[in-house]
Amino acid sequence: MLMIPGPTPVPEKVLLAMAKHPIGHRSGEFSQIIAETNANLKWLFQTKNPVLAIAASGTGTIEAAIINFLSAGDRVLVGTNGKFGERWAQISKAYGLDVQTITAEWGAPLNPDDFDKALSADTDKAIKAVIITHSETSTGVLNDLEAINRHVKTHGEALIIVDAVTSLGSHDIPVDEWGIDVIGSGSQKGFMLPPGLGFVTASDKAWAAYEKATLPKFYLDLGKYRKAAGQNSTPFTPPVNLYFGMKVALEMMQAEGLENIFARHTRHKEATRAAMKALGLPLFAPDTHASPAITSVVPDGVDAEKIRSVMKKRFNIALAGGQDHMAGKMFRMGHLGFVCDRDILCAISALEATLQELGHPAPASGVAAASDRLRQG
Amino acid sequence: MLMIPGPTPVPEKVLLAMAKHPIGHRSGEFSQIIAETNANLKWLFQTKNPVLAIAASGTGTIEAAIINFLSAGDRVLVGTNGKFGERWAQISKAYGLDVQTITAEWGAPLNPDDFDKALSADTDKAIKAVIITHSETSTGVLNDLEAINRHVKTHGEALIIVDAVTSLGSHDIPVDEWGIDVIGSGSQKGFMLPPGLGFVTASDKAWAAYEKATLPKFYLDLGKYRKAAGQNSTPFTPPVNLYFGMKVALEMMQAEGLENIFARHTRHKEATRAAMKALGLPLFAPDTHASPAITSVVPDGVDAEKIRSVMKKRFNIALAGGQDHMAGKMFRMGHLGFVCDRDILCAISALEATLQELGHPAPASGVAAASDRLRQG
Repeated sequence: MLMIPGPTPVPEKVLLAMAKHPIGHRSGEFSQIIAETNANLKWLFQTKNPVLAIAASGTGTIEAAIINFLSAGDRVLVGTNGKFGERWAQISKAYGLDVQTITAEWGAPLNPDDFDKALSADTDKAIKAVIITHSETSTGVLNDLEAINRHVKTHGEALIIVDAVTSLGSHDIPVDEWGIDVIGSGSQKGFMLPPGLGFVTASDKAWAAYEKATLPKFYLDLGKYRKAAGQNSTPFTPPVNLYFGMKVALEMMQAEGLENIFARHTRHKEATRAAMKALGLPLFAPDTHASPAITSVVPDGVDAEKIRSVMKKRFNIALAGGQDHMAGKMFRMGHLGFVCDRDILCAISALEATLQELGHPAPASGVAAASDRLRQG
Repeated sequence: MLMIPGPTPVPEKVLLAMAKHPIGHRSGEFSQIIAETNANLKWLFQTKNPVLAIAASGTGTIEAAIINFLSAGDRVLVGTNGKFGERWAQISKAYGLDVQTITAEWGAPLNPDDFDKALSADTDKAIKAVIITHSETSTGVLNDLEAINRHVKTHGEALIIVDAVTSLGSHDIPVDEWGIDVIGSGSQKGFMLPPGLGFVTASDKAWAAYEKATLPKFYLDLGKYRKAAGQNSTPFTPPVNLYFGMKVALEMMQAEGLENIFARHTRHKEATRAAMKALGLPLFAPDTHASPAITSVVPDGVDAEKIRSVMKKRFNIALAGGQDHMAGKMFRMGHLGFVCDRDILCAISALEATLQELGHPAPASGVAAASDRLRQG
């Protein structure tokens, strides 16, 4: 049982669709699958612009989201409050961008006022892009994308480039309505698919910047993907079996509806957090900025790795550990994608039993706290 | 029935392995799968060096093979005699390399003497790499890698970088014995897998060049993959379900044995070519330089697209068409990966029936000619 922030659980009918024999990626049959998934991806991304699918991990996808719209020496403002924000700063540096960071401690949200200050001070409009991790998977913090985006819009020149790897499909992001310029995500997150595909969409303003951008690229050149998408094709051989699965997964998401999907993730987030509080397990991210995809816990008086180990050995439930300097100090429970109320109760009850086994019994019932919240719908 | 040069047929037990629920990519269980597939990939690539797996198409993989070992302004000698050779020249230009091409007509092999001349003339050793497409999928030509490589070795300075996308696993390439510096391939070719994974391995000399290479990269930075491979891990989230399939496919290849795999591809190539000759269909590549993966045919007096259309509609056999300026003039029959003698006979008999239906009956029996060759083992 996967309760990590990706790979996430995959529905059986998606897995079985993926077990079909591959077909030619230049066939009419496959072109129809692309046409259908392209339309449904636009629905999911709440955009009229094409959503481009790349055979790559989330990192490759966000790299594409950055490098297609910028040139060497361009100044970028990168928000870093966790491993992934730091990674986008590293990528920006690797490509010779002039990186200015806005930082918050791991576990704290980025402060939109810091962006306001930096952008207001940039009177000669040197900042070409603001790069933000929406749901910071390493900490479970959901940064305030809406507020930061408002400051970017006031600046006027800079693009906003968003890592929505673990927030797209779990949190409402009205991409066109907010005017998000570039946003990327990955198949093994809110999409109920195995890893192997990433998704990016870009605004008209971003595509205008693309025309002038000179960072070197070929496989990650989004212009090639856009041109092919217009012909219900792909520029390079796509992972056809993942497309078979994506077709089914997107149909399932459409049947559930965006509002229901977001409400389910909110419910699971709040139920999980209520349970952790009842169990006496300190939450790493504040309630006001908690990711709908993942809950990070920094246990006090009981070893995080021991909790993960018992959860795995006794109950075969995979929790993620801490990353970088948080390794060994944290566990992270994913509740993203194909997750139902039963899964949350199951994971919480196993966690409660694990604490008992480790001689650290909970002060109150996690199951009761989670169940209370789940019952409210 | 897929008789195109990729995606290629996938064994049922590989498909079923891929239909298993994903597991955590940082789990001990997945680490064991990486350890096993890494070892088997070394066997398949005939190398002691790690074979690195990237979630990308063949193009992304060969881009990695090029950009990790070079710096802007470096001179590269690129062999172009088809669409893919031309693509590697485009990638080299996109990254600001100084591209010198050695060209042959589509359908003709590259002339090793041309490489000898260019490399001998380079007395100040400005050429940092020679980039070669081994099996040129767009034409069905197998370039003489061994002879070209000898000239590269005489030069001494340049690396040889090889696109073996449709030759690795179908043709004997003793990578370490020949001293091939960088070689890449893709999962949907000789590996009996769906698309979504690419593979690259590099020599000690190439890794020394990597240390000094300055082209920008992050997702395609092979140093990150090498470091992770040493820990039976991956730098970014891998397509775990494809790994499940790869484990099974590599076990099947080991059971068959390299010599048998290569002999099977040679037999199918020769049987297919014998059949085309009997059917009066002109072959695009010469017998001396014919790809073991794909046979290209330029029909005379009968429309290539009509042949493809009847083959698809009446027999549900997918053949590939011509690419770029050969579109509409050519069909290409793949015989790569999970293909058996029965498949060859089946495709040839359907082709014979198709010619009959199109009022262009064959001068002699293709089935008899193929069968003659297949019987010789």
